[in-house]
Amino acid sequence: MISNFMYETPTTLVFGEGVIKELPNVLKKYGKNVLLTYGGGSIKKIGLYDEVYKLLKDFNIVELNGIEPNPKYDPSVINGAKLCKEYNIDVVLAVGGGSVLDCSKAIAACAKYDGEGWDLISGKVETKDALPLVDILTLAATGSEFDCGSVISYTAINDKRAYASPFIFPKVSFLDPRYTFSVSKWQTACGTADAMNHILESYFAKYDSILNNGMMMAGLKSLMHNVKIALEKPDDYDARAELMYTCTLACNGIFANGTGPSGWPMHSIEHALSAYFDITHGAGLAIITPRWMKEILSEKTLGKFVLLGKELFDIEVKNLKDAEKVIDAFYKFFESLGIPMHLKETGVDASKIDEMADHILEYDSTYGPHMYVNLDKAALVRILKESM
Amino acid sequence: MISNFMYETPTTLVFGEGVIKELPNVLKKYGKNVLLTYGGGSIKKIGLYDEVYKLLKDFNIVELNGIEPNPKYDPSVINGAKLCKEYNIDVVLAVGGGSVLDCSKAIAACAKYDGEGWDLISGKVETKDALPLVDILTLAATGSEFDCGSVISYTAINDKRAYASPFIFPKVSFLDPRYTFSVSKWQTACGTADAMNHILESYFAKYDSILNNGMMMAGLKSLMHNVKIALEKPDDYDARAELMYTCTLACNGIFANGTGPSGWPMHSIEHALSAYFDITHGAGLAIITPRWMKEILSEKTLGKFVLLGKELFDIEVKNLKDAEKVIDAFYKFFESLGIPMHLKETGVDASKIDEMADHILEYDSTYGPHMYVNLDKAALVRILKESM
Repeated sequence: MISNFMYETPTTLVFGEGVIKELPNVLKKYGKNVLLTYGGGSIKKIGLYDEVYKLLKDFNIVELNGIEPNPKYDPSVINGAKLCKEYNIDVVLAVGGGSVLDCSKAIAACAKYDGEGWDLISGKVETKDALPLVDILTLAATGSEFDCGSVISYTAINDKRAYASPFIFPKVSFLDPRYTFSVSKWQTACGTADAMNHILESYFAKYDSILNNGMMMAGLKSLMHNVKIALEKPDDYDARAELMYTCTLACNGIFANGTGPSGWPMHSIEHALSAYFDITHGAGLAIITPRWMKEILSEKTLGKFVLLGKELFDIEVKNLKDAEKVIDAFYKFFESLGIPMHLKETGVDASKIDEMADHILEYDSTYGPHMYVNLDKAALVRILKESM
Repeated sequence: MISNFMYETPTTLVFGEGVIKELPNVLKKYGKNVLLTYGGGSIKKIGLYDEVYKLLKDFNIVELNGIEPNPKYDPSVINGAKLCKEYNIDVVLAVGGGSVLDCSKAIAACAKYDGEGWDLISGKVETKDALPLVDILTLAATGSEFDCGSVISYTAINDKRAYASPFIFPKVSFLDPRYTFSVSKWQTACGTADAMNHILESYFAKYDSILNNGMMMAGLKSLMHNVKIALEKPDDYDARAELMYTCTLACNGIFANGTGPSGWPMHSIEHALSAYFDITHGAGLAIITPRWMKEILSEKTLGKFVLLGKELFDIEVKNLKDAEKVIDAFYKFFESLGIPMHLKETGVDASKIDEMADHILEYDSTYGPHMYVNLDKAALVRILKESM
């Protein structure tokens, strides 16, 4: 069944080798003054920084660099928005991965708002405008290049918010798979686990259809096949290209439209983990995934494991015991990517489990009609304990 | 492999039972003056016409009705554009299937152009603006609700053009599957065949990937499963809903991005058929499909049949003979939908085959680097003869 849904993604994707030669033509529609945002400098190592400057020789570029993983409202968003106002910025150009994009989305919105930017991000004030945002993606993972969402932390007040608004869709996302050749094995594995989890969160939802199921299995198969090649041979263009396109679609909604509520429980749990321990998002998700699956496995959810078993692992699922084999296969798959499959190996302290469970229930309610399977505090504690 | 591509679809989909209650909120963004376009009056029979008037009681509605299947520049596009100028229309509201949508796209563009509208459609003059277009879809088939293309005929000068421009993307497409309950068995079958063919045209392309292949197989499976239910039980909401969403995606590009050139040869052949004999588009495509497959079957194309055989018909393809079984299965499938599988049964006259082959080569060149498999005149004649 396809439940009611609304879908929009006005972002233009420009995909493939050499596509950023179109960058000046795209940017000039918006104006001459560009805020260039990036992270720790990997874009300099791969030559992309110089390439951008060469292409934009007729533009006025102002820079915001040093954007953090799990990007921060203070200082990055605040500083970026300030620069936009000070230099009359016409367009924000984000060059990087999901964190740089998320941060730049918030900057683009805060640049057009005169009050305290956090009011937009926290939803206290409705976002009504944003500067145009263009990006060059350098990491296949979050799908931020093809959605209107972002996740921003405000350390001073211990807050982390998922911020979304139709005004912060990128206008154009440039995806050249070559810029991901230098992504480390660790980030490649974690980015893929993140995208796999995006699909699984939507798959374990109230409804399904031949179309949705098939698209999601295609996405999972593509990720699982191509990540292996990319880990082995980081400059394999075809593998990087398919990983990149699949990650872009995985979080966009096109796979999940009409599947109805799921609640994204694994992300809810992971948000608490990374709030407390700054764990890599994709690694946290990979560790939680099989434990969450085990927790929700029941006659009600058994059907979901039949297709996963058949399509991904060649396991015929007839009963709960068979389904456990599928869960185990996910565990082994993530392990084979080099992800440590225990939270204690990532620095998470078991003594915080109770507190984290409360945090999840407070910030990401995992009980209610928006959930495919409800998780109360006891269930959350079990999942976290099993994940240790 | 994923080849370079550009993708954009700014259209908002609003999908599901009862969604058109949002119509006034959507239209009022554009203005008060609405051009309502529709076809032969089926929207009156299903009560949609009255529903629209009730919802739009605060708007000024001007009507253009009687839009033809294979919509015509003269009179429909000309009259529609004239009404827009005369009544200061702010937004075009198309209510119908692919023909009404295609015609309304052309009207929206011509309304903003002072010269001869055909110059835009024929590509002589670049389209630089269009009125906003909103639609309520009543037929699952062409995918016009989620793309920027249209096909318009100009009978007086014997011309038929595929017209595309980013300005004619619908702003919002309302898709309520209930409005397709009354679609006849014939139109349901032909619409599904059309959408299947959209996927097959993209599938038989130069490149493929796990992702693209998987999404396309999901689309084909969804169409083939749900059309059977819809033919049996026309008011089965779930089947109609999945047919509708699958048709919407089938022609949009999201399945085909990065598969590289294919040339859409079956559509090229069908355009000649419907230019000469006004045959139903989907029926023409269903008849051509197995004959075209037979013509292009070779060691080079064999691989494409392996997946089709496995995923759709449970046929293991190891050699050309096995592939012929797959082709035969497509033939039988279309036949099972009630589509006569010989052109002579649809009124096509064999004496025109030579002329039609010339027409195809003139208007839709089927030889060159844009083709997955080249078709010269002899090949076109063979396909048409076999289809008789």
